[in-house]
Amino acid sequence: MSSEILPESVNNLIEEFSKLPSIGPKTAERLVFYLLKTEDNKTLGEATLKLKDGITKCDTCKNFATKKICGICENPNRTDELICVVSQPLDIVAIEKTGLYKGKYHVLHGFISPIDGIGPDDIEIQSLLDRIDRTKPEEIILATNPNLEGETTALYIVRQLQDSPVKVTKLAHGLPLGGDLEYADQMTLGRALDNRQVF
Amino acid sequence: MSSEILPESVNNLIEEFSKLPSIGPKTAERLVFYLLKTEDNKTLGEATLKLKDGITKCDTCKNFATKKICGICENPNRTDELICVVSQPLDIVAIEKTGLYKGKYHVLHGFISPIDGIGPDDIEIQSLLDRIDRTKPEEIILATNPNLEGETTALYIVRQLQDSPVKVTKLAHGLPLGGDLEYADQMTLGRALDNRQVF
Repeated sequence: MSSEILPESVNNLIEEFSKLPSIGPKTAERLVFYLLKTEDNKTLGEATLKLKDGITKCDTCKNFATKKICGICENPNRTDELICVVSQPLDIVAIEKTGLYKGKYHVLHGFISPIDGIGPDDIEIQSLLDRIDRTKPEEIILATNPNLEGETTALYIVRQLQDSPVKVTKLAHGLPLGGDLEYADQMTLGRALDNRQVF
Repeated sequence: MSSEILPESVNNLIEEFSKLPSIGPKTAERLVFYLLKTEDNKTLGEATLKLKDGITKCDTCKNFATKKICGICENPNRTDELICVVSQPLDIVAIEKTGLYKGKYHVLHGFISPIDGIGPDDIEIQSLLDRIDRTKPEEIILATNPNLEGETTALYIVRQLQDSPVKVTKLAHGLPLGGDLEYADQMTLGRALDNRQVF
């Protein structure tokens, strides 16, 4: 569309930005023109190119790491008796922000989704089962997303652990804190009623 | 916050993305994790680094260009009698999409904004006046944004051209097409009333 109007390098970067999730062509244009006005394109470009340099998966928990074993796994102040299973590394960031969890993690890197052709063998489930077998933790917390794919994945893992002595738990569902009861969706409100607690 | 949890290169790119306009920390995280899953970080990184390679401003209209004179300025099928003055190159892209404009452009690269310390000499106004003096076009269309800074800039240019024979026009204001009358703001509706046209 704008091939004659804008230099090729500008069109090129607009196109590349547009490929990113949640970035439409208008936003891509705005980002590129911002970069044209500043010096930031060098640092951003370098950082993007170097993104995967030396990045590997932790042997134990499969989180992204720069060493064979990640910082959380080798932290002696965190118990090995608790493993929190999440679908992606960003979920660890979210849980760590609560400051309340002192166990280890296991990153599945995805979820079971037959529609997208993603089966149990395509994500880090076998490594989780092997790890439970080997380290015999007390409890596994399944912290997959509370949606269809997340629940399917959790259910699959529960079934695989049927004959294991490990205790399997999941995150509580209910009204979000600071939320307004009238705006809660009926599924969440129903779950909050079912799981009501004694004062 | 997530310095122990995520590799440095990941945190680094999240930080760089967060510097961009309209990209918050959450969006930055999502973009970086998308890039981690794909091969796109190489092409995006290269494109970002090369963004400004060989980019200069057109001698005549000040739009970004890769040659001394840009494609629009050297196009013999576009008349020299009309110059449309815009504040940024993206505005040219928007006007070109209408397919209705066959004149040339002049890019101010900003607008007069005393609050931000941007005066007439900080943007491409003198080059516009010199160009009008030199090429003597019939008409100048001031297509700056319909907001305080845009109007101030347009007004300043009008004053500078008081003694020039050039005709100075501006874009029409009124109801946007496809818009709903009840949702129009009162300023726009007032302008649409003032500028009402005979059927």
